[in-house]
Amino acid sequence: MTITLYSLAGADVSRPFSPHCWKVVMALHHKGLAFQEKPLPFTGIATVEEGFSKTVPLLKDGAHLVSDSFRIALYLEETYPERPSLFGGEGGKAMARFVEGFSQTVIHPVITRIAVGDIHAMLAPTDQAYFRESREKRLGQTLEQLASSREAHVQDLPGLLTPLRHMLVNQPFIGGQTPLFADYIVFGALQWLRIVSGLVPLPESDPVRGWFESLLDLHDGAGRKVA
Amino acid sequence: MTITLYSLAGADVSRPFSPHCWKVVMALHHKGLAFQEKPLPFTGIATVEEGFSKTVPLLKDGAHLVSDSFRIALYLEETYPERPSLFGGEGGKAMARFVEGFSQTVIHPVITRIAVGDIHAMLAPTDQAYFRESREKRLGQTLEQLASSREAHVQDLPGLLTPLRHMLVNQPFIGGQTPLFADYIVFGALQWLRIVSGLVPLPESDPVRGWFESLLDLHDGAGRKVA
Repeated sequence: MTITLYSLAGADVSRPFSPHCWKVVMALHHKGLAFQEKPLPFTGIATVEEGFSKTVPLLKDGAHLVSDSFRIALYLEETYPERPSLFGGEGGKAMARFVEGFSQTVIHPVITRIAVGDIHAMLAPTDQAYFRESREKRLGQTLEQLASSREAHVQDLPGLLTPLRHMLVNQPFIGGQTPLFADYIVFGALQWLRIVSGLVPLPESDPVRGWFESLLDLHDGAGRKVA
Repeated sequence: MTITLYSLAGADVSRPFSPHCWKVVMALHHKGLAFQEKPLPFTGIATVEEGFSKTVPLLKDGAHLVSDSFRIALYLEETYPERPSLFGGEGGKAMARFVEGFSQTVIHPVITRIAVGDIHAMLAPTDQAYFRESREKRLGQTLEQLASSREAHVQDLPGLLTPLRHMLVNQPFIGGQTPLFADYIVFGALQWLRIVSGLVPLPESDPVRGWFESLLDLHDGAGRKVA
């Protein structure tokens, strides 16, 4: 069976950047599953698989289609139970939803505000029009207005990762001694910022930086290969 | 075997208030274990069990002593594996540490600043002197100065619970369909505020309020009995 992951990229398809797609890339490597990644422009998502999904990641495993990063992770866990677990049991499956809540509502809004101009700059022209209109509407400011508060958000980001920093005193990964999907959730957010803006705004001495670097190295450096 | 939980109270020993002790109270009920709670004043902690611990909760199970709420939960899970799990497996055990990180670094600092004056008011005189000195040093302000920003912190609290609110769209508890120790971690923080300040600063329509109320009802209303 062939696994295809539809993901997201700008004009340069060698640099897929979506945080949600990165979660799935890491999850597929974690399960040791071979896959082909097909990065799409924003405006290309509705054109594949007969418009099955309005968003990526979209996974095609044989004839089976699944969208949404968390649902894909649950699908992989259920379909490939003999391979390394992404959740470490039912409790981990449930609590990964809390980590998702944290990443989506605390980290993503700030990264969006840092990176929105950089994302716009890397898109192909047709995507740029869609992206500017939808993001300016969602955020209530023009891309140019958002640029003025960018540096303040960069400064804020390390502080928002304090819960992770506090946890790292006890264990090296959110998954415990080894990473689980919950790690890939927060990794996806920082990887998105790294690819789009070239920023890892955490000092070398920060344990969160060490955690992120070790995830960049994981799975033969799958994350580090894209910059 | 008799289980004793040393916890924390003010002049009125019928109102133990420590967030960390509440986590353990809920964990003991979760495991269906009978126990005797012995609330101590701050300055009484070092006087029991030959000064085994400088902090509560301190659990005595037969001859075995364990301190620290998370370590106690791990001890209960290991010692009573045939009773309902507090973690739902190894992944849940690890991710509960992330929930702890969130509660300790995002929720506790704000509740401390809201409740510090109320805690001082409910303590016996010997504890008051210790509490005022240690808290004013830690927070860098007098109790009277802290009172001036109290209302602003009350207003901030609902927003800080956004990750939990986001998660509740998918499931009723951090533990999934039923609560686990990770739920009791965040519950402990809000129960602390409820007992000490009489506040549950979340509107009735807030899903986090619904989650908290259901935890107050749990285990025959163990949490609701203290107000």
